[in-house]
Amino acid sequence: MDIDLNADLGEGFGPWRMGDDEALLKIISSANIACGFHAGDPVIMDRTVKLAATRGIDIDIGAHVGFPDLLGFGRRPMQVDTKELASYVVYQLGALAGIAQANGRRMTHMSFHGALGNMAAADAALAMVLVEAVARFDAGLIISSSASQAIERAGDHHGLRVAGSFLADRACDDEGLLVPRGMPDAVIHDSAAVLARVTQLLDDGTVTAYSGRRIPMRASSILLHGDTPGAVALATAVRERIEAVGGRIVPISRQVP
Amino acid sequence: MDIDLNADLGEGFGPWRMGDDEALLKIISSANIACGFHAGDPVIMDRTVKLAATRGIDIDIGAHVGFPDLLGFGRRPMQVDTKELASYVVYQLGALAGIAQANGRRMTHMSFHGALGNMAAADAALAMVLVEAVARFDAGLIISSSASQAIERAGDHHGLRVAGSFLADRACDDEGLLVPRGMPDAVIHDSAAVLARVTQLLDDGTVTAYSGRRIPMRASSILLHGDTPGAVALATAVRERIEAVGGRIVPISRQVP
Amino acid sequence: MDIDLNADLGEGFGPWRMGDDEALLKIISSANIACGFHAGDPVIMDRTVKLAATRGIDIDIGAHVGFPDLLGFGRRPMQVDTKELASYVVYQLGALAGIAQANGRRMTHMSFHGALGNMAAADAALAMVLVEAVARFDAGLIISSSASQAIERAGDHHGLRVAGSFLADRACDDEGLLVPRGMPDAVIHDSAAVLARVTQLLDDGTVTAYSGRRIPMRASSILLHGDTPGAVALATAVRERIEAVGGRIVPISRQVP
Amino acid sequence: MDIDLNADLGEGFGPWRMGDDEALLKIISSANIACGFHAGDPVIMDRTVKLAATRGIDIDIGAHVGFPDLLGFGRRPMQVDTKELASYVVYQLGALAGIAQANGRRMTHMSFHGALGNMAAADAALAMVLVEAVARFDAGLIISSSASQAIERAGDHHGLRVAGSFLADRACDDEGLLVPRGMPDAVIHDSAAVLARVTQLLDDGTVTAYSGRRIPMRASSILLHGDTPGAVALATAVRERIEAVGGRIVPISRQVP
Repeated sequence: MDIDLNADLGEGFGPWRMGDDEALLKIISSANIACGFHAGDPVIMDRTVKLAATRGIDIDIGAHVGFPDLLGFGRRPMQVDTKELASYVVYQLGALAGIAQANGRRMTHMSFHGALGNMAAADAALAMVLVEAVARFDAGLIISSSASQAIERAGDHHGLRVAGSFLADRACDDEGLLVPRGMPDAVIHDSAAVLARVTQLLDDGTVTAYSGRRIPMRASSILLHGDTPGAVALATAVRERIEAVGGRIVPISRQVP
Repeated sequence: MDIDLNADLGEGFGPWRMGDDEALLKIISSANIACGFHAGDPVIMDRTVKLAATRGIDIDIGAHVGFPDLLGFGRRPMQVDTKELASYVVYQLGALAGIAQANGRRMTHMSFHGALGNMAAADAALAMVLVEAVARFDAGLIISSSASQAIERAGDHHGLRVAGSFLADRACDDEGLLVPRGMPDAVIHDSAAVLARVTQLLDDGTVTAYSGRRIPMRASSILLHGDTPGAVALATAVRERIEAVGGRIVPISRQVP
Repeated sequence: MDIDLNADLGEGFGPWRMGDDEALLKIISSANIACGFHAGDPVIMDRTVKLAATRGIDIDIGAHVGFPDLLGFGRRPMQVDTKELASYVVYQLGALAGIAQANGRRMTHMSFHGALGNMAAADAALAMVLVEAVARFDAGLIISSSASQAIERAGDHHGLRVAGSFLADRACDDEGLLVPRGMPDAVIHDSAAVLARVTQLLDDGTVTAYSGRRIPMRASSILLHGDTPGAVALATAVRERIEAVGGRIVPISRQVP
Repeated sequence: MDIDLNADLGEGFGPWRMGDDEALLKIISSANIACGFHAGDPVIMDRTVKLAATRGIDIDIGAHVGFPDLLGFGRRPMQVDTKELASYVVYQLGALAGIAQANGRRMTHMSFHGALGNMAAADAALAMVLVEAVARFDAGLIISSSASQAIERAGDHHGLRVAGSFLADRACDDEGLLVPRGMPDAVIHDSAAVLARVTQLLDDGTVTAYSGRRIPMRASSILLHGDTPGAVALATAVRERIEAVGGRIVPISRQVP
């Protein structure tokens, strides 16, 4: 079994840092790098791409695109015209692709961040427009997304591969959609519980939803967070668990779909 | 004689507009499009690229990169670490290249805006680093620049073509460098005077500098401004003058260097 | 009958302008000045306050506070935590009050702009928190607001005077709330129709709602827009109509409530 | 001997934090709070003022005003028109004064941050304009400044008290001006050396400049930094040293000038 480990990196801004990118980069196989809208700036993007590049082909470089809302870290829903939002997405993709290119690397995937991700995952019309924009930018890009029929269908329609990403520390509803952060226990802080969820996914391809129901979960990737205490230890434990059950850590771009 | 006519387009931001892009687009053969740092935003960039695309191959699409200073329109010198500045440049190039790409177009050139342009034109070390960043991003990109030995040498060194751009309505010193906007008569508002400068350039490849000296001026392109009253009429007059003396308007990417 | 004429001024940003502030300032009796979040910046705010100050006590100076969204001009709803929004409001009030104070003037009123205004007008809980923030900042401030029971009740509760502002060129529903801009005919572009609405208000204190129903409308003020063609002519016509029927133009701070 | 201990607080932005404000607030007697231009935002400003307010009158609340440059944390010189800069200053003063006011507190002082502070300290004409702007905003405000004849003279001229602030961990030249951060040993990282400098100041009112010369240093206040490892321990040690030699920690607004 091949699986990718991905994390959101480069989430600082100007003089500010968030998460332990160096440590995570030793563990993961794909990096989602913030593009300056909800976090990140050109200098941090360049530094993060350079850091990742030291890992060579063992790591995929992707763009993490979000709402233009540094104050709210892209976590606040904004009612933006859908076509304008598509331009925001392409701008961010281009910016990170440019930084990757100037470092001799190719950007292989993208994912939607925060409120933009939640809205796209739950809104078929929005997903269709945004995924079309991604495809117009680069028809070879992989979309990394938490479980979402809207995104999967849009990917099918526009010929883009959608790689399911399992957010081990976030509760989901019966359709696999993320439970909003504001809800109690939406974010799972207990490491043992997170690790148990990963084990269950590896065992039988299911996850226990917020309702208690066991639902199927297809995932090419597992998302690890880096901005909480103990995050790096947990990420290490997840990686070891995968390898213990005979899994291989493989970047999504090099998995056989 | 082939010459390009270029203009700075897409210089609005959010709800705000500047210049008459539609009118200029009928006259020029290359567009320098703001990338969101000193002006421009993803929506305006997309609209401007789409507008330009209606002209087909008759028009080059380029990135106009500047300081991150919307309040000052990129006209205020900022002391930014040179390497950080290189990342700012690549970010902007990537963003516009991405928007062009999503519209089925290739970005062919770039130019430095405002204070960043003035600083790079006058500082050989800075020019070398910034031009290197452009070359690392895309070794085929043309740099459109007002007369500057610093930029020309950096282009030579990094293997990039530098296309001289003549700013017909801006005074220059004996080396061809732009006289700072704050100086009296640095900006030439009289249409007849601007047209006379263009005619002199076409006639014998010279320009009369701020000091009164006549200096040689190599130019592949003439820059037209769109944000002043009478700008469009003046641009039209310049185009007609070129054609009257037997010149052809040809985008820089299709000129034989 | 005393009535105030107000307009939203200082809606430029950096090098960009919007509306004809100079012309409007000759007509109106209170100015709502953007505070840098949806439009405006310190330089424009200072210039606008200075311009208004030339009218002396004939004009009230107020803060026009909005969402932190220059790209969307504050017209896009954002889901911001209510308490955080209260801090955004106080920050903007303080900034404009400071600029007024440095020019020897006192800020007398405030109003909510765009999406923030629509959300506060329609949401009693939000209105209560935001109005409380205004009262904590300055218990003597007047709130200028389009018809809204939510705002009026919050004003009553926190001891702030709410001066009804009639948006003559915007359709309203049967409760007087503004019809969203996206709806057909939500913005009334026909000058004669706008003038007829003002006349009806002056005649019998009613307005014809979007549904065709005639509803009562209490207004201490009439809002004029400056960013559309013919806006200044229309504003002049409104002023003349008021004076023709014997009304007096009086800033809200000097009306007897 | 009465002396104030001050620190720069609220230097986060949106989701990002910098320094340990809670710990510093137990030690210091005046807080310089960032106002959203180089750092800080309305929510952080409000939280910081509320935190400070729990200390009651034992702590002064002031505005820390800087260049509009979040990316560069206000540490990069920008060539901004002096009058425009004065508007930037007043805007920031007003914003923090507003947040203080809404929390039932009065802002008592201000200081210039980073590159703006260095430029104002070294440029008499700039200092005169900026200090005039402060005085126009509030003639009772105290200016907290590192040693600068330019600021002191401007304060004298405009009737504002200037309270000297000693930056114990920054090297200064023979006139007391801060040595630029880029220079070797401009920032003193060794705690013992910092403490020795404080002791020398308390002993005989002198400081050893970068050149090795001993120069007089008048200080009403000592600035402590909170964003380096060991900062809080050092701040505590400074406070204890002052008290050990019989000094009293008194906010600048309550010192007898």
